[in-house]
Amino acid sequence: MDSELIARLRRDLPEGRVLTDPAVTAGYAHDEAEWAPHGSPAAVVRPRTAEEVQHVVRACLDHGVPVVTRGAGTGLSGGANAMDGAVVLSTEAMNAIKDIDPLERLAVVEPGVVNDDLRTACAGHGLWYPPDPASAPWSTIGGNVATNAGGLCCVKYGVTRDYVLGLQFVTGTGELVRVGRRTAKGVAGYDLTGLLVGSEGTLGVITEVTLRLRPRRAPEHTVAGHFASVLDAGRAVTAVAAAGVTPSALELIDRYCLEAVDAWKQMGLSTEADVVLLGRTDAPGRAGDEEAETMRRCFEEAGATWAARSTDPQEADALFEARRLAYPALERLGPVLTEDVCVPKSAVPEMLGRIHAIAERHGTLIANIAHAGDGNLHPLLITPPGDEPARVRAQAAFHDIIAEALALGGTVTGEHGVGLLKRDGLRAEVGPEVMALNRAVKDALDPRGLLNPGKVLGPRAPLGTRY
Amino acid sequence: MDSELIARLRRDLPEGRVLTDPAVTAGYAHDEAEWAPHGSPAAVVRPRTAEEVQHVVRACLDHGVPVVTRGAGTGLSGGANAMDGAVVLSTEAMNAIKDIDPLERLAVVEPGVVNDDLRTACAGHGLWYPPDPASAPWSTIGGNVATNAGGLCCVKYGVTRDYVLGLQFVTGTGELVRVGRRTAKGVAGYDLTGLLVGSEGTLGVITEVTLRLRPRRAPEHTVAGHFASVLDAGRAVTAVAAAGVTPSALELIDRYCLEAVDAWKQMGLSTEADVVLLGRTDAPGRAGDEEAETMRRCFEEAGATWAARSTDPQEADALFEARRLAYPALERLGPVLTEDVCVPKSAVPEMLGRIHAIAERHGTLIANIAHAGDGNLHPLLITPPGDEPARVRAQAAFHDIIAEALALGGTVTGEHGVGLLKRDGLRAEVGPEVMALNRAVKDALDPRGLLNPGKVLGPRAPLGTRY
Repeated sequence: MDSELIARLRRDLPEGRVLTDPAVTAGYAHDEAEWAPHGSPAAVVRPRTAEEVQHVVRACLDHGVPVVTRGAGTGLSGGANAMDGAVVLSTEAMNAIKDIDPLERLAVVEPGVVNDDLRTACAGHGLWYPPDPASAPWSTIGGNVATNAGGLCCVKYGVTRDYVLGLQFVTGTGELVRVGRRTAKGVAGYDLTGLLVGSEGTLGVITEVTLRLRPRRAPEHTVAGHFASVLDAGRAVTAVAAAGVTPSALELIDRYCLEAVDAWKQMGLSTEADVVLLGRTDAPGRAGDEEAETMRRCFEEAGATWAARSTDPQEADALFEARRLAYPALERLGPVLTEDVCVPKSAVPEMLGRIHAIAERHGTLIANIAHAGDGNLHPLLITPPGDEPARVRAQAAFHDIIAEALALGGTVTGEHGVGLLKRDGLRAEVGPEVMALNRAVKDALDPRGLLNPGKVLGPRAPLGTRY
Repeated sequence: MDSELIARLRRDLPEGRVLTDPAVTAGYAHDEAEWAPHGSPAAVVRPRTAEEVQHVVRACLDHGVPVVTRGAGTGLSGGANAMDGAVVLSTEAMNAIKDIDPLERLAVVEPGVVNDDLRTACAGHGLWYPPDPASAPWSTIGGNVATNAGGLCCVKYGVTRDYVLGLQFVTGTGELVRVGRRTAKGVAGYDLTGLLVGSEGTLGVITEVTLRLRPRRAPEHTVAGHFASVLDAGRAVTAVAAAGVTPSALELIDRYCLEAVDAWKQMGLSTEADVVLLGRTDAPGRAGDEEAETMRRCFEEAGATWAARSTDPQEADALFEARRLAYPALERLGPVLTEDVCVPKSAVPEMLGRIHAIAERHGTLIANIAHAGDGNLHPLLITPPGDEPARVRAQAAFHDIIAEALALGGTVTGEHGVGLLKRDGLRAEVGPEVMALNRAVKDALDPRGLLNPGKVLGPRAPLGTRY
């Protein structure tokens, strides 16, 4: 532990910002990525202003200590995991919504604002912030920006990067800068804003975000389908794309998830279907009716055992609630390792089949939830608590899923980020020349290598050692 | 002239790729930016494959000769202007549309494909590539990507960067690499794709582009308004934004443009209006009707002398044709220096007022066309041919417009890029720390500094000198 650094931070920051009690800091040592390694941070700092963030970064630069930035810690790839001796910079106390401007359709927020809180505030102005990761009730905009978070809406409305107009951040040399703009368009210089989005705390520490908003949309129509197999459901996804429909959500939930939700919440889903596909459209007026009907027909033609438009909004919401409950429901069964591959839409049925074969080959329980409409699959690998051989088999299955996604022209991570868990996958996906370009960018913006070192690009230095 | 380099290029590339006749190469020495300096290139090379591009870049690196990449040369900021002794790499012969995939909704194209040709090809599959710069009949996708081109549709559909999924390019060290993806989502590593978009040939030479497409949209409704002043028209723009409408186009044409079009094409526009505002909406069905009616009401309430929905598609197209003809019509009067500032939507009336004051102050004729709906104004500074004092006054007005846009929270370039003309403006907009970050990125990806040197970031080394 760098006691001089701690003393400096305590001296220069207001009371209560610096936490060093190991019982407290342990709660900030890692995100929700199962089995990703982590160490013990020297301190957790919870700044309240951009200037305090700058002070923390400068102090860490002076002392050669790594800075690991985190929002709510809901990440699933280990991107926010601390290494021994690091300073964890938590943005949770920077949670002010500074501005919501209905005319310019933008919001200016501090990084610690919770996604759902922003969405609620926007709704009060007739506005909508689309990105809706499943973690939206807890995850922060800063974390969403750092990981370029996705969600259910992406199939129609894109990802977090599509909504970030500008950023204020502290650079790897300790400068507090603004990039981007408040205008609708702008091409003045390189797109540093977009570069920071998804950089997982390795290129800068975000202190303020200017977000593009959309007007409130039309009410959604919901279509539900029951299928006898994930392959049939996958074919329905491809059929929807081929029909030219752009759903506002298209989610797949397999029977392991349905059973786990039923075991917890007694919703009676698994007695009715092996696989559920949930489609939504928010096209206004008659176009919405037509798209919903087209989706229903696509479901039936792909072999749905049952498909219907939900006329009851509460029923529709309950179905999507089951989708949201799938992950915590599965966690009740044991540790869940979450995959995040994304494949071309046409490859969804094939990829689901290969995941099934991988589960059989390794004797691993793999449940599936998927943002099926954009090919972003979340196979969930579940192991009994404490079963080490099962864990080893699950790890092997995890790597096989990555390999199969790449073989089908996909990517190793659709929306969770590289963090620690996908570093090998990234190298396999992009190859040495593009890794060198990534490294060149990292070295250019973080020349001291103290911003979340080891994440995304590696080298895979053992965590628990000091960088 | 580097005769060894020329000899090597001639020897290693197929017949006809290398042009050195000064009468021919002069046509490749500059883009359409009025008054931007340029030199005489040593050679123009027109490769036909990515491997030939790589060969050109590697040869230039070996000989320390700058590479200036260009598409159709329709740029308006000098970004494609050659320096003495440079090799101009024209992508015009790489014009294959390699793939249009309706199911994945993407296209893969070579950089020399003309924008309108791609749009036509997409339409044949029921698909749409939205970015529509005014240069669309001539400009190439490679140039559009390199400048992050905008257009009329941006107010609803965003800019070129929003449609680039992946790129193949030759790096500053001569590697041929692929970045990005073919999947709907992906967060594997830094967003190098987005970084290359808008980098104006200074970070790499693009050899292939993978583009996101949209389904064909609903037919547009057109609303036209006549106004007695640009201020009234500006107020109408703000009113449309405040009403929550998202037009698919919202264009302003002032009386100088109307008169110039009339003088050329006898359309009789300038006898009816001082300023024309053209709005469009492509919301489907009833929603489109409602949005069009809301726009018409906003026009009237802002003081339109006449406002009506166009029920005749031919009439509506004629109005937009007048918008497209404005620029060439003005060029008949003398050299036109095109501005490209973008301000917040709420600042459009104020900015138009300040432009008017600047015109008076400098005794310069400034016509205005504007993508008014997203605050992107194109003041057009016109000088009589050969009138040097008028040119000097116009230059001063150009700088004043930039200063006023910045004062109103705007940007110096909404969609044309920095090139040569906006380098001072860029520095004024972003400040020294962000300039240093831009420079760090440039040095990281182009360590030899031979890719379009001097553009965007400067230093403003005199063109005509060898780098």
